[in-house]
Amino acid sequence: MPPVEITPEFNPLRLATDRRLSRIAGPSGLIIFGVTGDLSRKKLMPAVYDLANRGLLPPGFALVGFARRDWETQDFEKVVHDAVKQYARTPFDDDVWKQLAQGIRFVQGEFDDDAAFARLKDTVEELDVHRGTMGNHAFYLSIPPKSFPEVTEQLRRSGLAEQKDGQWRRVVIEKPFGSDLKTARELNEVVESVFPPDSVFRIDHYLGKETVQNILALRFANQLYEPIWNANHVDHVQITMAEDIGVGGRAGYYDGIGAARDVIQNHLLQLLALTAMEEPISFDAADLRAEKEKVLSAVRLPKDLATGTARGQYSGGWQGGEKVLGFLDEEGMNPESTTETFAAMRLDIGTRRWAGVPFYLRAGKRLGRRVTEIAVVFKRAPQQLFAESQTSALGQNALVIRVQPDEGVTIRFGSKVPGAVMQVRDVTMDFGYGHAFTEASPEAYERLILDVLLGDPPLFPRHQEVELSWKILDPIEQFWATQGKPEQYRPGTWGPTSADDLLTRDGRTWRRP
Amino acid sequence: MPPVEITPEFNPLRLATDRRLSRIAGPSGLIIFGVTGDLSRKKLMPAVYDLANRGLLPPGFALVGFARRDWETQDFEKVVHDAVKQYARTPFDDDVWKQLAQGIRFVQGEFDDDAAFARLKDTVEELDVHRGTMGNHAFYLSIPPKSFPEVTEQLRRSGLAEQKDGQWRRVVIEKPFGSDLKTARELNEVVESVFPPDSVFRIDHYLGKETVQNILALRFANQLYEPIWNANHVDHVQITMAEDIGVGGRAGYYDGIGAARDVIQNHLLQLLALTAMEEPISFDAADLRAEKEKVLSAVRLPKDLATGTARGQYSGGWQGGEKVLGFLDEEGMNPESTTETFAAMRLDIGTRRWAGVPFYLRAGKRLGRRVTEIAVVFKRAPQQLFAESQTSALGQNALVIRVQPDEGVTIRFGSKVPGAVMQVRDVTMDFGYGHAFTEASPEAYERLILDVLLGDPPLFPRHQEVELSWKILDPIEQFWATQGKPEQYRPGTWGPTSADDLLTRDGRTWRRP
Repeated sequence: MPPVEITPEFNPLRLATDRRLSRIAGPSGLIIFGVTGDLSRKKLMPAVYDLANRGLLPPGFALVGFARRDWETQDFEKVVHDAVKQYARTPFDDDVWKQLAQGIRFVQGEFDDDAAFARLKDTVEELDVHRGTMGNHAFYLSIPPKSFPEVTEQLRRSGLAEQKDGQWRRVVIEKPFGSDLKTARELNEVVESVFPPDSVFRIDHYLGKETVQNILALRFANQLYEPIWNANHVDHVQITMAEDIGVGGRAGYYDGIGAARDVIQNHLLQLLALTAMEEPISFDAADLRAEKEKVLSAVRLPKDLATGTARGQYSGGWQGGEKVLGFLDEEGMNPESTTETFAAMRLDIGTRRWAGVPFYLRAGKRLGRRVTEIAVVFKRAPQQLFAESQTSALGQNALVIRVQPDEGVTIRFGSKVPGAVMQVRDVTMDFGYGHAFTEASPEAYERLILDVLLGDPPLFPRHQEVELSWKILDPIEQFWATQGKPEQYRPGTWGPTSADDLLTRDGRTWRRP
Repeated sequence: MPPVEITPEFNPLRLATDRRLSRIAGPSGLIIFGVTGDLSRKKLMPAVYDLANRGLLPPGFALVGFARRDWETQDFEKVVHDAVKQYARTPFDDDVWKQLAQGIRFVQGEFDDDAAFARLKDTVEELDVHRGTMGNHAFYLSIPPKSFPEVTEQLRRSGLAEQKDGQWRRVVIEKPFGSDLKTARELNEVVESVFPPDSVFRIDHYLGKETVQNILALRFANQLYEPIWNANHVDHVQITMAEDIGVGGRAGYYDGIGAARDVIQNHLLQLLALTAMEEPISFDAADLRAEKEKVLSAVRLPKDLATGTARGQYSGGWQGGEKVLGFLDEEGMNPESTTETFAAMRLDIGTRRWAGVPFYLRAGKRLGRRVTEIAVVFKRAPQQLFAESQTSALGQNALVIRVQPDEGVTIRFGSKVPGAVMQVRDVTMDFGYGHAFTEASPEAYERLILDVLLGDPPLFPRHQEVELSWKILDPIEQFWATQGKPEQYRPGTWGPTSADDLLTRDGRTWRRP
């Protein structure tokens, strides 16, 4: 059977516009390791279906599951089907599903079983012949990092990693990319000993979010913001990633990792880089990464890490009307753990654009509410015109990029209070994705999987960025390791008092988003 | 009876805050000439009541009506009562009304009747003694300008204009302040021969609008806007005052006046001045007026008035599902009239801040909808980053001050369209007075009458500003006078094609607000 031809007419839902058709993935297959995990079911399988439904996958697309579970292909197909029904964003369409299901395969095996990888190779080759994947395959390692060496070695040994002329093989890895600079380098050596750097796709799913990509549009497609996006006008920047949940069932994973390694090293430093970088000369991966790396290289740690950082552990208490466990009492947790569930730090950026403008980062669990945002807080206007009493209810102007939830942008500025006197008070104006666009926002994983299949790397951090992030975090982690137990904070609050002190010392306060 | 003492406790509704109490008018009275007109009933009487209701008038306040109508005080009181019930913004309160009504008087007479002015003087003096107005009176000339000389002369002759030590007499006049520079000067000489310049309050009710006063707060209390409020970043400014109604019953008044004299000379040039002026060193009238006069002095007319201005007359047709008359067919209209019902012009401002940035002004009747707005349209960002196809749906960034209706501020900027490609499209964010503030916006006349009683002049243009505005308009009017009949435009459109041409020649287009 020859490969199915890709034509615009194929798209059954006709959701795709001309624009998008130009970004349809070519003949290819996705092989997922760790197919029984939550990420696969809740994100990867639905994303594959949604891409198919939007007409962005080739009709001969293949989805292969690899796991130790004793399944046949039809069991796996059922798992994918149920996951799609439960978690996909687009409506379930029988035709789309049937087309996709024809390319589903399952290979049973352990990671140390050479025969299993031989079977996987046979499956892939069968797909190349009968489904038209044409030798193009991406291996998605949705597995613990400790298994990376074994699986990548098997991919090499079995010949699955080998790229023949005009074909491609790619590997997708998820954070954590190590737990410090040293382990990150080791991990990278393992992966890049098998796959060339251009074929390694590191997923930071924050970079797949519309709101994060919009930072580039907001800054560089407009004339309103870039002229004031610098130390002349910006007072400081706050980047917050707050969760209202605790570690829950992930206690074992989380112990020894903590908030800084879990989300600051990747998500928050990526947000910082996109917010602070200079304008790249193009959206090409090399240009974009070069600017991000430049600004990450320019990050300066506080001289005194005791006052320039803060960390905490949530205690037991009440949140949202429910009694919740403290971090140390979570099931499976080491009660002596010194792992932080809240981390905050002041970082400075040694560039002309940002000299003297602190970037305050904080991330934590069991905080007041779930929210991720970047708040660019501007200097006060001189206001010689106004008496102090006229502007007592006026804060600093701010532009807030609401990453999630309630995606959008808010501007806070001062406006005259109606009445017979001049009194200025903060007001806000909002732009909300939900209201502004009828286009559905693709899920981050949709975008990123499509980019992997297209070989489009701008949204994937390369190893150099990962290294730079660890260079920022390592000294902080080493300092914290000498400081004993973190301060406790009550669930539903905004972290330990040391975090408030961190800003108070600079004459500032955290936003309560 | 001694004057009633003013205490904060007096305010029956306790609406006034401490801040506002400091702006309670002192002992005073308001004498309105032309008390049978629309303005008096719909604006002035309700404003006086609302001020009283908000606790901003002294308890012994007096309101005197002067007209030829054969009324007694109780007839006039009834008229005020009904006008208040129908048009006041704040709820009707019996106590407030009774307190106010005790200070109401009516004086019957013709403008040429010395005896009537003698009776008015007696009334005023009676109020000073029994009501506690203490010799402080404002004369509101809500009458045709042709009667100004007669009435001001009567006020002089009767001694009513005379200010004794520690007392004040003020005169309030409404536009039109003449019909050109010459007549404006003549009018001014008449008024200022009786009242000193500081005692003459010229009402441009646009300056009493919250949204107009907010231009000052927006520009100068914030850090976000002023850095880009200049020729480096602004492409051009559009100031629009559109009405959807025709001249209706005002045909007689309007003929020979036209859109430019009626609203551009005053409202639109004031909006231009507030938008374009440099930051004053204080809100004091002298400082504010100095900046407005400076920028009005710097206004440059188009070299070619034929291409740099446009005018039109609405034709008959359909608007809002109704058949409407053309301007020349309106009742009482001279069918040969060359008066324009639409006027547009490009003005430049010869300052470093605005060099090369055109200010496009337009005003007209029977346009698409009723709206007044100032749109600051920014230059395109360089956008080397984006392919042309990525920004084809992206216009220029704009900050729009919505003066009326739907008062507020809108920012238009580009945002990424959700989806797998980088596509940037215009979105808007809004700030609306109605949503942002629980405080009721006082009506413009409320604010302005209070300012008159307080002797607070920043919101009143002085004669120099009026002269400067006429210096801008006179050459245009003189040119138009040589050009015969204006172009016709259909009701419900946005004016004549020559207005579109005016911007097309500059590579721009009018907003459709």
